[in-house]
Amino acid sequence: MFIDDLVEKIKYLNNPSVLGLDPMIDYVPEFIKYDFFKTFGYTLKGASESILEFNKTLIDSIYDIVPAVKPQLAYYEQYGIEGVRAFEETVSYAKLKGLLVIADGKRNDIGSTSEAYANAFLGETFVTQNKSFTAFKSDALTVNPYLGVDGIKPFTDICKRTGNGIFVLVKTSNPSSVEIQDLVVSDGRTIYENVADLVKEWGSELMGKCGYSSVGAVVGATFPENAVKLRERMPNTYFLVPGYGAQGGSAKDLAVYFNKDGLGAIINSSRSFMCAYKSELWRNKYNEEHFGDASRAEAIRMRDEINSAIGGT
Amino acid sequence: MFIDDLVEKIKYLNNPSVLGLDPMIDYVPEFIKYDFFKTFGYTLKGASESILEFNKTLIDSIYDIVPAVKPQLAYYEQYGIEGVRAFEETVSYAKLKGLLVIADGKRNDIGSTSEAYANAFLGETFVTQNKSFTAFKSDALTVNPYLGVDGIKPFTDICKRTGNGIFVLVKTSNPSSVEIQDLVVSDGRTIYENVADLVKEWGSELMGKCGYSSVGAVVGATFPENAVKLRERMPNTYFLVPGYGAQGGSAKDLAVYFNKDGLGAIINSSRSFMCAYKSELWRNKYNEEHFGDASRAEAIRMRDEINSAIGGT
Repeated sequence: MFIDDLVEKIKYLNNPSVLGLDPMIDYVPEFIKYDFFKTFGYTLKGASESILEFNKTLIDSIYDIVPAVKPQLAYYEQYGIEGVRAFEETVSYAKLKGLLVIADGKRNDIGSTSEAYANAFLGETFVTQNKSFTAFKSDALTVNPYLGVDGIKPFTDICKRTGNGIFVLVKTSNPSSVEIQDLVVSDGRTIYENVADLVKEWGSELMGKCGYSSVGAVVGATFPENAVKLRERMPNTYFLVPGYGAQGGSAKDLAVYFNKDGLGAIINSSRSFMCAYKSELWRNKYNEEHFGDASRAEAIRMRDEINSAIGGT
Repeated sequence: MFIDDLVEKIKYLNNPSVLGLDPMIDYVPEFIKYDFFKTFGYTLKGASESILEFNKTLIDSIYDIVPAVKPQLAYYEQYGIEGVRAFEETVSYAKLKGLLVIADGKRNDIGSTSEAYANAFLGETFVTQNKSFTAFKSDALTVNPYLGVDGIKPFTDICKRTGNGIFVLVKTSNPSSVEIQDLVVSDGRTIYENVADLVKEWGSELMGKCGYSSVGAVVGATFPENAVKLRERMPNTYFLVPGYGAQGGSAKDLAVYFNKDGLGAIINSSRSFMCAYKSELWRNKYNEEHFGDASRAEAIRMRDEINSAIGGT
């Protein structure tokens, strides 16, 4: 089951972090782009092959120290079919290396359509009555709650069968998340608290042996005061926490996202990890050719910073 | 500008409807599947080629009487890379035939990621400083409002430049849309009314010459009593109305979605249109080989039913 695998890996590696693979062609070192643009021209194919090569080196550089990666679909879709192929191959490569893969697509729709998304990312698609294939099979998918349970149940139904998981948007990391998520309903709860209560309910049928559910919640690193309330409200829900680093979430605030057992949250970093070789912190130590080493160094720095913040080792 | 083009086409064709292209392999007639499975095997490729051929015939059968089509991304993604290619080619083929294309993806994320989605579906992606390509370029895209303006502005910014449009989920057609969208906030407004007011605000900078905005709203056909309030609340917002037909929305209730000028809404039908050749209404008149004629007959029936409901001709 997804959540048991995730918790086991987090414990084994002593690392509650996930690395985002949200590639822009500008992130890719020149020497990689040079080769692929030379072969495929200045095309979406050339860009997508460059991105895939970049991702593979990033994965090679951290697969033994990090439990999971989170490729963000938007960044691949912008490069068209070839970009989506780079996503597919990134997922396969990461899984081959033993990483858990959280596809970040914020997918959602009415029931029948959510079922198609669930087939695509967490299950399988039948082409005849007896023959099925997986499309972009990942271990978990991020989903949006705006449509209520109809849009969620197809995902949890498939997770029950396949052992996969989802993370539902509860409180997002961006400044304008307050516009809708922080509105206060007549019973005194905010919208994100309402969603939190629904997520808890939806997750009750997907509890793992570890005491957490395979239905997790996205809770942004930029609103620690909200996280305190959410942590109490949903003690058995795993938090996927974006917004640390580049978006301004700070390490000292991370402790409130975790339970007393040191579990309950996984912190995401994307840009600071992917572009470590360009950063003030690492660019003097690692040149462009060794961008993977810079990303590994950043992943270790981040692991230690999070562990120190939550009182781990 | 998208909204001006849409209104012009609706007026010219006297048809305020959009046909959903949400293909399942089961919808495709046997004689099409037979050919492609024979060539490509029982594979995702075989299924995707069958679906593309099915779509092309559907497009051929209605492009001169219907203003727009709405392919739903989930249905293509479930068939993997080959399915996404079928989506891309469906979009191209529909545009070639002069149809407007509304990509139904309910995309949304924080700002930088929404920008990548906007590049993918409404704009262009740069592979070098001077060279850009379009990925899945459509005329409009459906988007989710849960993250507030940060997740919307990248779309409207790109629409300002390219003339394209978006439809923001306001009140969806599924039964559990009440769980979050109908919650009442302390100022007495429901969440969907709050979102409606935001959509109106977001749309004010994308007003077309026709008096409507290129920022539209998704308002489900299954909640006409809510539509009455929303129609008053957002007079210059075009409504994309799903849920008519297969989901239970009835024609007699459709009038409230329109303004007195007979404009302001476009009604979607997917399954009843795509599977017309299997329906009780048409299966005795058209055999499987003439599924396109059955779909055309259904599209005409639907057009006339809607026009009769709204007091048109």
